[in-house]
Amino acid sequence: MTAIDAVLARIDQNREAAVQRLFGLLAIPSVSTDPAFAQDCARAAQWLVDELAGLGFDASLRSTAGHPMVVAHAKAKRRDVPHVLFYGHYDVQPADPLELWESDPFKPHLSADGERIVGRGSADDKGQLMTFVEACRAFRETGDWPCDMTILFEGEEETGSPSLPAFLAANGEELRADLMLVCDTNMWNKQTPAITTMLRGLVLEEVVISAASRDLHSGMFGGPAINPIHVLSRIIADIHDRRGRVALPGFYEGVSELPDDVAEQWQKLDFSEREFLGSVGLSEPAGEVDRSVLEKIWSRPTCDVNGIFGGYTGKGSKTVLPAQASAKFSFRLVGQQDPEKVLAAFRHFVHERLPLDCRVEFLSHGASPALQLPFSSEALVRARRALHAEWGKEPVLSGSGGSIPIVGLFKQDLGIDALMIGFGLDDDRIHSPNEKYEMSSFTKGTRSWARVLDALAG
Amino acid sequence: MTAIDAVLARIDQNREAAVQRLFGLLAIPSVSTDPAFAQDCARAAQWLVDELAGLGFDASLRSTAGHPMVVAHAKAKRRDVPHVLFYGHYDVQPADPLELWESDPFKPHLSADGERIVGRGSADDKGQLMTFVEACRAFRETGDWPCDMTILFEGEEETGSPSLPAFLAANGEELRADLMLVCDTNMWNKQTPAITTMLRGLVLEEVVISAASRDLHSGMFGGPAINPIHVLSRIIADIHDRRGRVALPGFYEGVSELPDDVAEQWQKLDFSEREFLGSVGLSEPAGEVDRSVLEKIWSRPTCDVNGIFGGYTGKGSKTVLPAQASAKFSFRLVGQQDPEKVLAAFRHFVHERLPLDCRVEFLSHGASPALQLPFSSEALVRARRALHAEWGKEPVLSGSGGSIPIVGLFKQDLGIDALMIGFGLDDDRIHSPNEKYEMSSFTKGTRSWARVLDALAG
Repeated sequence: MTAIDAVLARIDQNREAAVQRLFGLLAIPSVSTDPAFAQDCARAAQWLVDELAGLGFDASLRSTAGHPMVVAHAKAKRRDVPHVLFYGHYDVQPADPLELWESDPFKPHLSADGERIVGRGSADDKGQLMTFVEACRAFRETGDWPCDMTILFEGEEETGSPSLPAFLAANGEELRADLMLVCDTNMWNKQTPAITTMLRGLVLEEVVISAASRDLHSGMFGGPAINPIHVLSRIIADIHDRRGRVALPGFYEGVSELPDDVAEQWQKLDFSEREFLGSVGLSEPAGEVDRSVLEKIWSRPTCDVNGIFGGYTGKGSKTVLPAQASAKFSFRLVGQQDPEKVLAAFRHFVHERLPLDCRVEFLSHGASPALQLPFSSEALVRARRALHAEWGKEPVLSGSGGSIPIVGLFKQDLGIDALMIGFGLDDDRIHSPNEKYEMSSFTKGTRSWARVLDALAG
Repeated sequence: MTAIDAVLARIDQNREAAVQRLFGLLAIPSVSTDPAFAQDCARAAQWLVDELAGLGFDASLRSTAGHPMVVAHAKAKRRDVPHVLFYGHYDVQPADPLELWESDPFKPHLSADGERIVGRGSADDKGQLMTFVEACRAFRETGDWPCDMTILFEGEEETGSPSLPAFLAANGEELRADLMLVCDTNMWNKQTPAITTMLRGLVLEEVVISAASRDLHSGMFGGPAINPIHVLSRIIADIHDRRGRVALPGFYEGVSELPDDVAEQWQKLDFSEREFLGSVGLSEPAGEVDRSVLEKIWSRPTCDVNGIFGGYTGKGSKTVLPAQASAKFSFRLVGQQDPEKVLAAFRHFVHERLPLDCRVEFLSHGASPALQLPFSSEALVRARRALHAEWGKEPVLSGSGGSIPIVGLFKQDLGIDALMIGFGLDDDRIHSPNEKYEMSSFTKGTRSWARVLDALAG
């Protein structure tokens, strides 16, 4: 029996006790957004400190302006192993509306067939973070830590992580590692694991165009007076070309094509564009004409107007020629696109289309780059192999159309790439009544982390 | 002395008494919008009935659902004269804010130099309508009526004439005439009379474009999901071509070029495009590149978006991909443009630009044709000559960018063209404190009507 075989066997032996431990954590209503549960948040954090200390971690509770952080360290005896930083969050969403739950959200239990763990936080994120803790336990109980380990659990993820930036700024050195591991994402489906390697970046820019010194009567001035709604509409119309590409000069700098194997994998996925669009009442993909829907969401940049406003918008009509019109633009970025360059190109694009009598004001609401774990990175290659061994299938290398601010923060502040492996499923009902986590996600998830840690150690 | 010379001489003799009579009408606070002044409105109407009856008109008060109408008839002894219908309104705007008046708004008086009649309604419209009544008096006192005459005074013009459509429907035969005369417009300047021969029509159409069945997250769906703000912006951008013309097929059907003499007159007017635009903070004319500002406002059709709305418009950003976006379009029409054809062309234009997954809803807020007194009409030719004789200058044949609903109603219901001659000035402060009417407008206005009526009689 190899060392990893012993670890995996121990995970299987621990299974029932592991579920009971998870129940202990799930029973604590650590709802971060509601001050009434502040003591419960502190209790959940202390529960984790105790749990990690019991495993031999150097674990401590760290107070913040909000709910406390949990930080734990453990050092492997081997000297040539990588240092990983595992991130998870112990806070949960409120359980409301309570009347839609079939059981008490904070009385965790197994479904009758034993296949699902039910309770608030079972999937988001307590069940997921405990897969990692249980993997650590099995290593510890059968030998040494596989890597140098740091664990960070926060209690404010569901409220936008307000204390995290200051905490990273103050404790950056202590948290420095070679690689970040995150267990807060989904599998492709119940049988197929996934690694999220791409998160799109985001540039948010509001444009306010002004013309006349006041609103005008469209009968008295309509014709010779410039209409800022027309100017804005021209800009929006010009920003995509006839093939659905964003027409800002230089916009696609830093956007790479997928490696052949990834492109081929995506093509073969059992993903129905028709069902995806049909679920929201659409039937025909918009955007770049020669790209698949998955590419468009995961690996291609976009521009969308999220809001537009100008003139009279009440009931009926008003013959006004407005002095001002505004629109909120967002750009989703991928690969190595530079948010500052995109912003500069956009502002130039707007200025080029601004008639003499118009002025423009730009309001910036944020700019962050895309995050991409290089497809060739050694950690990714090893993690793919490890997950394949556990699940008997190649993991899907997925992207995420939305950004995950925490991962961006670690990349930006500490320069650490993230390997995002999670075992949630689309039907886990996170943030909703009757949240559940599959037993297979919990047990094979724990085994997956054991294999990944073993593979990273080499 | 010819008959008309006798009439003009009588007007000059009547001058002081005429001002005193006008003061009598101005002293009645006939504010139509405020129910507290309902009795005053009725008093003003009765004052006019008495005045007209005293001149020999068959005059009567007609009750409506709102304030009463005044209708008066008089028939000339001559058989071959035209029948004219004079329209005016006896109601006035509220005097607020009272503290900005330098005198009691309903204690009419002359300015110290005797050159201005001061008081609410002096210009809009009591002073103007009395120019016509005083002209009638001079004819009556020196001989016979010059034409067959009908007079209609209403008391709800300032509140949108709510009772007028029903009144016209019920009394159309009684009000039928060959030509309508209206005294509720302005001169070009204090020395130069004007005849308004063109009123632009108006088509008001709201467009609501829907796509997905609900608002979407722009990270999860941005790219493959169609954005209705983009679709709407493309439509707005396409609706004008690069030369500022409206790009709807067939839009310019029924739009004629000005006669040479009118075009030449407009070119020679002391009108500063720079000052006109500068007064509202603009410096460069928009719209059709090869048209003057006066043409653009008076004699050219336009399209403007009066309002646009979609998605998130609060502070900051929200990464939403909205399910719906809407815009309110207005078309100003001229000449013989057909509102129904314009509407049909517009709807077709929108449908042509509608992607498969979008739906459109149209909300119509009104459609009325332009009104144009033909430049070749005999009445216009005669009125021009009459005004030239009084003022020593060719009257300006002006247009009005906005519509005047009452005139449209008479044209539509009774088929009567209108000759709009008024003696107001841009600085008369109608609807504002310290409203005034120039004494020269009052006396030469009265003389002008005498000459016009004489000219129309031939």
